Amino acid sequence: MLPVQLIRKQRDGGALDDGELRAFIAGVTDGSIPDYQIASMLMAIFWRGLDDRELATWADAMTRSGDVIDLSSIARSKIDKHSTGGVGDKISIPLAPAVAACGVAVPMVSGRGLGHTGGTLDKLESIPGFRVDLPVEQFAKLTDELGVCLIGQTARIAPADKKLYALRDVTATVESLPLIASSIMSKKLAEGIDGLVIDCKVGRGAFMKTIENARALCALMRTIATRAGKRITCVLTDMEAPIGRTIGNALEIRESIEVLRGGGPVDTRELTSVLGGEMLVLGGVARDTAEGRAKIDKALADGSALEVFRRVVKAQGGDPRVCDSPGSVLPKPRDCMYSCAWFTQK
Amino acid sequence: MLPVQLIRKQRDGGALDDGELRAFIAGVTDGSIPDYQIASMLMAIFWRGLDDRELATWADAMTRSGDVIDLSSIARSKIDKHSTGGVGDKISIPLAPAVAACGVAVPMVSGRGLGHTGGTLDKLESIPGFRVDLPVEQFAKLTDELGVCLIGQTARIAPADKKLYALRDVTATVESLPLIASSIMSKKLAEGIDGLVIDCKVGRGAFMKTIENARALCALMRTIATRAGKRITCVLTDMEAPIGRTIGNALEIRESIEVLRGGGPVDTRELTSVLGGEMLVLGGVARDTAEGRAKIDKALADGSALEVFRRVVKAQGGDPRVCDSPGSVLPKPRDCMYSCAWFTQK
Repeated sequence: MLPVQLIRKQRDGGALDDGELRAFIAGVTDGSIPDYQIASMLMAIFWRGLDDRELATWADAMTRSGDVIDLSSIARSKIDKHSTGGVGDKISIPLAPAVAACGVAVPMVSGRGLGHTGGTLDKLESIPGFRVDLPVEQFAKLTDELGVCLIGQTARIAPADKKLYALRDVTATVESLPLIASSIMSKKLAEGIDGLVIDCKVGRGAFMKTIENARALCALMRTIATRAGKRITCVLTDMEAPIGRTIGNALEIRESIEVLRGGGPVDTRELTSVLGGEMLVLGGVARDTAEGRAKIDKALADGSALEVFRRVVKAQGGDPRVCDSPGSVLPKPRDCMYSCAWFTQK
Repeated sequence: MLPVQLIRKQRDGGALDDGELRAFIAGVTDGSIPDYQIASMLMAIFWRGLDDRELATWADAMTRSGDVIDLSSIARSKIDKHSTGGVGDKISIPLAPAVAACGVAVPMVSGRGLGHTGGTLDKLESIPGFRVDLPVEQFAKLTDELGVCLIGQTARIAPADKKLYALRDVTATVESLPLIASSIMSKKLAEGIDGLVIDCKVGRGAFMKTIENARALCALMRTIATRAGKRITCVLTDMEAPIGRTIGNALEIRESIEVLRGGGPVDTRELTSVLGGEMLVLGGVARDTAEGRAKIDKALADGSALEVFRRVVKAQGGDPRVCDSPGSVLPKPRDCMYSCAWFTQK
């Protein structure tokens, strides 16, 4: 079938069969379908949505548009966490080492800043020398050896998503729940994970402003994960106020290390504990969230999480002294002015 | 405003203001808005439609995207006819000279074949030497001198429509009524006419399959014309069977000349009479359709319509002997096979 026929079918609310969905994503990936036809299809999906089967196939085709990392040689459970993005959200940085310290591997492919929210990669790069562009082979090796590795999306991970994401941004098709869900999940499923905890932010500082919208997005991500044979837990968390007390790449690393040293702001510690607890349950090393949380809290309190982070920083080229005296290693904030209007307005 | 913001507003069912609509069409015309954003906007219009004010502004912006021919120096009323396209529809060819013979000028910019329907230009070009690519100045001059001139759309007439039409064809956005109506009307309003008769075809051989659809399209075209200060009459006519007895460029010229000689198939004569009658009413030379039809019938019977056609053929470079012995001037059909399945299936 020609792309225009697939667009027409989607436009009229018809269900595209699996072969049609895969052919469209293949055409997106190899460049044979021009941008204007992709744009038209994206708006038709924005309008008509995708049913569960279509959504799962669309996301799976996006996942397989590039490399799916093979971590089958790692014996431990491989569980990742994804946040839909919040202000001051540095949770991945204390979370991943804490979970690894409890015996679950965390192969984490993170993102950059998106809209008004910062990105884990940008924060990590404030540690002098820290590299997030490791080759896939080294990513797999470090995940096995240290239990965690933190890198950025490579050109070979979900290239269809890269293409679609860039077009959505300029064609007013960003806010479609099936397109958001498939974009997130295609990248995560390409990591070779066994399961995933979603931290779905809700509130005026989040992309999902209402609990209904957040629940609907989570339902779609659950559909994609389940049909792909992966475990998933979705946690809806508050984004009415920034997480922790700091915003800014170096400042957030500093706060993350406080958490890894058993301190830090209460909300940041609690969120790390909750998400980590769920990851341990998915990874099979805790029976329930309470047991998982207790293990995470212990790893943060006894220094084992910090020790994993120290090894990760060193292995990824960063200065491990950041763990002991972050103030002397991290760049200093300059004098600058911020507008706090965003935080104070209701 | 950025194009993406206009697309988002249209996508969410908001009304674009006149400045926004004109800015978008200006960006289409000068190439500053990329195809993928135009495609996304077209699908959003397909979905949400345009209200009357938006539609009229959108069409007017398309009309003004190129030259609007100035025929104000022609004293007579200037009335055109547009058909939405039918099989065997050669009506323009006897109609335009007949209306001109009755004292109303017909500045006709016609199209080529579209989908399964033939085009007036292709038919006229089967007359050896006949040129449809005359410059605008000559078009105006011949319309004044002979009362009629038949040309094709130039690059300077409604260039925004050219761009949108090409994209609609490959992005599954052809069948949108506001997009169809604005496409037709932008070209017609650029002709410098005072009024327009629409022959809206309805039935299995037409683009509009149902009377409801045809009425809806006519209502939109009436909105555009009225808001542009032009008179308009819409006639809904049957397209369950081909018009006349011939299909094919040279054959249809031959049949048109039969009508111009006062003969021809009954349906073809009647359609010419009905549409011509309405054009004369719009042009102010007949009080009602019946009087208009009587004048057209007379012009066909007394040879005055044929005489106008003879002058037009000559003035546009064609062999005027086609009016006397079409069989010796027009190309002969070759032996060929046609599938008549389309005509016989219900």
